[in-house]
Amino acid sequence: MYTFSTKIKDLEGSAIRAVLKMAQGKDLITFAGGLPALETLPVDFINKTIDKALTENPGLALQYGVTDGYGVLVERLQEKVKKMGMSLKDNGVMVTSGGQQVIDLVARSILNEGDVVLCELPTFIGGLNVFKSYNAKVIGVPLEQDGIDLEALEKQLKENKVKLLYTIPTFHNPMGTTMSELKRKAILALAHKYDFLIIEDNPYGELRFQGEDVPTMKSLDAEGRVIYAGSFSKILSPGLRVGFAVAPKPVLEKMVVAKQVIDVHTTMLSQIVAAEFLAWDGYDSHIKNCCDLYGKKARLMSECIDKFLPEYITHTNPDGGIFMWCDINKDVDTKELLAKAVDLKVAYIPGYTFMIDTDKPCNSFRLNYSMPTEEDIIEGIKILGEVF
Amino acid sequence: MYTFSTKIKDLEGSAIRAVLKMAQGKDLITFAGGLPALETLPVDFINKTIDKALTENPGLALQYGVTDGYGVLVERLQEKVKKMGMSLKDNGVMVTSGGQQVIDLVARSILNEGDVVLCELPTFIGGLNVFKSYNAKVIGVPLEQDGIDLEALEKQLKENKVKLLYTIPTFHNPMGTTMSELKRKAILALAHKYDFLIIEDNPYGELRFQGEDVPTMKSLDAEGRVIYAGSFSKILSPGLRVGFAVAPKPVLEKMVVAKQVIDVHTTMLSQIVAAEFLAWDGYDSHIKNCCDLYGKKARLMSECIDKFLPEYITHTNPDGGIFMWCDINKDVDTKELLAKAVDLKVAYIPGYTFMIDTDKPCNSFRLNYSMPTEEDIIEGIKILGEVF
Repeated sequence: MYTFSTKIKDLEGSAIRAVLKMAQGKDLITFAGGLPALETLPVDFINKTIDKALTENPGLALQYGVTDGYGVLVERLQEKVKKMGMSLKDNGVMVTSGGQQVIDLVARSILNEGDVVLCELPTFIGGLNVFKSYNAKVIGVPLEQDGIDLEALEKQLKENKVKLLYTIPTFHNPMGTTMSELKRKAILALAHKYDFLIIEDNPYGELRFQGEDVPTMKSLDAEGRVIYAGSFSKILSPGLRVGFAVAPKPVLEKMVVAKQVIDVHTTMLSQIVAAEFLAWDGYDSHIKNCCDLYGKKARLMSECIDKFLPEYITHTNPDGGIFMWCDINKDVDTKELLAKAVDLKVAYIPGYTFMIDTDKPCNSFRLNYSMPTEEDIIEGIKILGEVF
Repeated sequence: MYTFSTKIKDLEGSAIRAVLKMAQGKDLITFAGGLPALETLPVDFINKTIDKALTENPGLALQYGVTDGYGVLVERLQEKVKKMGMSLKDNGVMVTSGGQQVIDLVARSILNEGDVVLCELPTFIGGLNVFKSYNAKVIGVPLEQDGIDLEALEKQLKENKVKLLYTIPTFHNPMGTTMSELKRKAILALAHKYDFLIIEDNPYGELRFQGEDVPTMKSLDAEGRVIYAGSFSKILSPGLRVGFAVAPKPVLEKMVVAKQVIDVHTTMLSQIVAAEFLAWDGYDSHIKNCCDLYGKKARLMSECIDKFLPEYITHTNPDGGIFMWCDINKDVDTKELLAKAVDLKVAYIPGYTFMIDTDKPCNSFRLNYSMPTEEDIIEGIKILGEVF
């Protein structure tokens, strides 16, 4: 009686969300999530903003809005991305229900079944699953410490007619690494040569706690090949579900039509909070506090790994963001070990969940340092030392 | 450089939203929208609920939530739909970002390109566009005063392998009419005979102001063929974007996987407000107030049409909901006349926007009576009398 779309038939729910569900209710130290630290959430600001919006203009806050986004928010986002060096001559901005929705809207607008999409390996599973759910042919390209392996990338571009590249160049999920400016420019040159588009997914970009800023790929994009996915989830609140896209106007136009059938528009109260957040005089110090905290936690986690984990486990050294990636230079399956870790009250995300082929054993894992307390980082890494 | 998906290439933005945009900023009497009356929005209740949620449990309100929905809301929805006669033995409930998203999730879960979807004519354009955006073959079946024309329906079922029927049986958009219980049962029997599934879209069901309740198709569905789409948009607030689905468990499971890639989860604050709304001791009297108001406005609009519009214009007599449908038994193109009406400061939605073939001239139009004031209804229909 029930026959399913070939697009969704074999799609599994995110393994990460499964781990999070497994951890729910247990008193775990969890390095598995991707949440901002609870203490960074500007709760009072959000509460006051909503109270003001409901008191002064309940119609705006509670009735239908336009699909491309609340006008004030769109304007402030335009200012923001212009400051980041993006040109709005041939690009437009729209609001989305979280950064995740940008990926879905792009896929829906430009992909036909069988189109080739390249992504980094490892990569964000939420991106990967979007492309799978449109029956795209997804091919992985290995990631190096300074970004995509260019040789491997060009090999794929020669062998396939590639439609789209999905990348998280800044404070990568799950790697924590940042792509060099050189590589960003090289990839844009390849996009010109092989005629493909790029999704630049950048939810963590503002959370830099050390090192020099690297320009976004969108700000280096003179041809209109990059669709930029921004998000308020890591700097304001994930539960509000607000993100945005900066895209070439013809692409953006289709994305707005697609959004109309998907959810009509993004929650108005969330959009109003995001708009006021961008104009908030506490914005800069709020971001600075987040960066200071995450830098401190990242350094602590680094030290603990070096101290408590075996020598054959190496880790990345993020300059920002919320994730750190560990490689085990030994034949250890982190998928199997997870049950043991959870028994000892620690959760991490095994590396296979970030791969296209999830059946291979995977001697790597992702750690989140934004959410756990400093005590939990020390205690949790100690326990992981016992696990491995 | 930009080539688009065949799924979205020819999809136009909703003509209704275009009319609303045209009307924006002008001092119009608008019968074009589909919004609840501003004065019915429970603004204080919403503000207090959010303040409480942010004060007592900011982590719940602002961090990530699970994809299938905030647990308390899911439980209260389960209670609610059980009271409406739906069985939860083989069905589950999930929260969505508005009722619109239910249609999209179902289409994404079960449709392959070329699958045949039947819909009523006229029908809700937001539904129609979802199916078009999956490259489904959409075929219309005429609507009669008591629901779908059964003979025309069975003719299509014989000629096509139909996968899905999309219907709005209660207080239809745009017709305002309600399908009889007899026809509901007859359609379920046809679904068994010809093996297809049904989306029952029911955003207006609670807004009955006269006549007897008719059971939902989902409550009559013994076989698990109906996916029920519910919404808080017309009874609480459209801007919060909360809806829900009741669906057979295997279908629901796929819908949850689909939602994970589309927007991860629905805005938590909106879900908390919806959950508290269902438990609010003011709920019943709130719904009663909405019904009383819309009944009064619907009767007034009926009277005004009879009084001020030419005799060759007939209208439906809704027992609930927010829309009334007018047929012009004369060769008049309501699409062309709209510009004239807007010049005279009145907006309506011409009938062609609810059709599959939008190029044919259309001598019908939809009027909304929930949003305009009583004075505006009198004045606006008078002006329409001049227009026609």
